[in-house]
Amino acid sequence: MAKETTGEKADENTVFVGNKPAMSYVLAIVTQFKNSDEVVIKARGRAISKAVDAAEITRNKFVTDAKIKDIKIGTDSVVNEEGNNFNVSSIEIYLTAGKK
Amino acid sequence: MAKETTGEKADENTVFVGNKPAMSYVLAIVTQFKNSDEVVIKARGRAISKAVDAAEITRNKFVTDAKIKDIKIGTDSVVNEEGNNFNVSSIEIYLTAGKK
Repeated sequence: MAKETTGEKADENTVFVGNKPAMSYVLAIVTQFKNSDEVVIKARGRAISKAVDAAEITRNKFVTDAKIKDIKIGTDSVVNEEGNNFNVSSIEIYLTAGKK
Repeated sequence: MAKETTGEKADENTVFVGNKPAMSYVLAIVTQFKNSDEVVIKARGRAISKAVDAAEITRNKFVTDAKIKDIKIGTDSVVNEEGNNFNVSSIEIYLTAGKK
């Protein structure tokens, strides 16, 4: 996954959802929960639906004690290859699982 | 829009996001805010991304005092035309605008 240099700290417990099948991200989220009590799922544009799918599949089938702590939506300004500016919606889903 | 008989009360301030362009739903949301301080945006499956777009466009361009009160995600069980059961993710975005 490309490293972002947005000034945002690159949290190790963050899963960025993109073009792969939802189950790829479910696997990433489940793996993150082995190291952390909290996992943040981030997505932009049309991947937002897949981020919600991945969170729900994780909660329903794999990490059944995981709870949704918070969900944030926002708008990111993006420059495309032609140099045009456009806006894209984003989502951040904060999942927590019971402290062991 | 088809009337749902899910036992859920059919709130008049709810906008269901589906296959139309995002701006259609933005218009519906802005119109709802003329009658109500709170509007609920609901979507399922791939329309979830569009629901987030509609909420963000409304907040950024049209109802600039609107705030996100709450966001819920969930899983609905759906039966398709072949009689098969499958799960689909859902989202509910609760927007409030300053009481006038």
